[in-house]
Amino acid sequence: MDETCACPGEQTAVLTVAYNGAPFCGFAKQPGQVTVQGNLEDALALVLRRNVETTCAGRTDSGVHALGQVVSFEVSEDEFADRNLHTFVRSLNALTDDALIVKDLSFKPAGFSARFDAIAREYHYHIVSGQTPPLFMKDFAWYVPGTLDVNAMRLAAKYLIGEHDFKSFCKAVSAIDKPTHRCVFDITIEPEAVLGEEVLTITVVGNAFLHSMVRTIVGTLISVGLGRRKPEWVGDVLAARDRNAAGETAPAHGLVFWQVCY
Amino acid sequence: MDETCACPGEQTAVLTVAYNGAPFCGFAKQPGQVTVQGNLEDALALVLRRNVETTCAGRTDSGVHALGQVVSFEVSEDEFADRNLHTFVRSLNALTDDALIVKDLSFKPAGFSARFDAIAREYHYHIVSGQTPPLFMKDFAWYVPGTLDVNAMRLAAKYLIGEHDFKSFCKAVSAIDKPTHRCVFDITIEPEAVLGEEVLTITVVGNAFLHSMVRTIVGTLISVGLGRRKPEWVGDVLAARDRNAAGETAPAHGLVFWQVCY
Repeated sequence: MDETCACPGEQTAVLTVAYNGAPFCGFAKQPGQVTVQGNLEDALALVLRRNVETTCAGRTDSGVHALGQVVSFEVSEDEFADRNLHTFVRSLNALTDDALIVKDLSFKPAGFSARFDAIAREYHYHIVSGQTPPLFMKDFAWYVPGTLDVNAMRLAAKYLIGEHDFKSFCKAVSAIDKPTHRCVFDITIEPEAVLGEEVLTITVVGNAFLHSMVRTIVGTLISVGLGRRKPEWVGDVLAARDRNAAGETAPAHGLVFWQVCY
Repeated sequence: MDETCACPGEQTAVLTVAYNGAPFCGFAKQPGQVTVQGNLEDALALVLRRNVETTCAGRTDSGVHALGQVVSFEVSEDEFADRNLHTFVRSLNALTDDALIVKDLSFKPAGFSARFDAIAREYHYHIVSGQTPPLFMKDFAWYVPGTLDVNAMRLAAKYLIGEHDFKSFCKAVSAIDKPTHRCVFDITIEPEAVLGEEVLTITVVGNAFLHSMVRTIVGTLISVGLGRRKPEWVGDVLAARDRNAAGETAPAHGLVFWQVCY
């Protein structure tokens, strides 16, 4: 982040935003609800003394966290010419909820969109399995009692890599009359120690995602990990193009919208 | 953990316990307060149908977390002979606060003490520095605005390794007429990424610790890290044998009692 806005020709402001999803009814603003977008646009309106309409890289559901959500908004000519950008970000952080942190501000040419210019989105889903539920990771991991067969989950995940019709992995009501093809670039499933607790992290990278797609992928992989289904079943789920064919939707609090590539 | 208690000759039960320190007024039981020991002994009394007096490896202060606290209590002859140990631990976990988890149960010969037989104790202290406060690590890390000179902190920590009189690092009222020599085996200071946030972890290993000793070590090292003091000042603090010579006591919520060696 530069001290001041160097290029007068640049006219889209781009914020990198992190939030704990717990206190928010999701990203998208809704009348009478505390949402990430509502909270952020209210703060922007106070600092810029005008209404601000924002666009985000990915609309997260209620309870889903973000480490690197990207939010863009159009900036009028010279609106940032005399502003110290550090002071601007500090002002935003003073006005937004404690569970939301603006981490960075940069500028792109007019017409840039956090949503339409994104080429890849990365989500991390955290799972704690075994006999004891998570303690420190309680608010950030799905507790799955039992033992997970991680290799079976990895085999199952291979069926989802590439460009497919992911209709089976989309919240049914959101898939009506909408294109449901997406490209998943990679899914990795790796154990890691977080504050001394063993966490299984499922990382999903793709060009774009349908409503609840990552959480439905995770719920489906867990069915395989618990031995209720074979890995090849995931191929059948994909072919069915029917949400009822897939596994459960994993809970929101285990998901973090990790980063976006442009 | 075995299914049943194999050796009738063993007469001390040893629990490994993890807890989030936030809801507890410390480990040691106090009338009218929610404490780890009180919560655990109440659950033990219900399951064993008798009063139970426990001993712990380290009495943590209010707000301090534990990953591997060890708690021992004497067991009467054959008290566990017909018990399924998994069921016993599950019963304890059903009765204790959600912020406390009994992770393991084992047995040692009569006379074993979680406190007096411990040969090394390990604490981890988590710090987030820089311009943005922690979000996901908010409840488990001390936020220090500014930039820390980690190499200076490492040089400073060297003064504390070995057997010394740590009176300067002991809560003053607790040091009156008590021995204040302890041996610190090692202090390491390493950055690590936790849920995508950069955390500086100070690991302190020693034979035993005085009241608030780890947190006073951390507060003192932070004075050096922020450039307010030179590393060699820590040698002067140690020599002073006076709590007023040391830095501030770092807040409780950044500290985790990590593990105990016997």
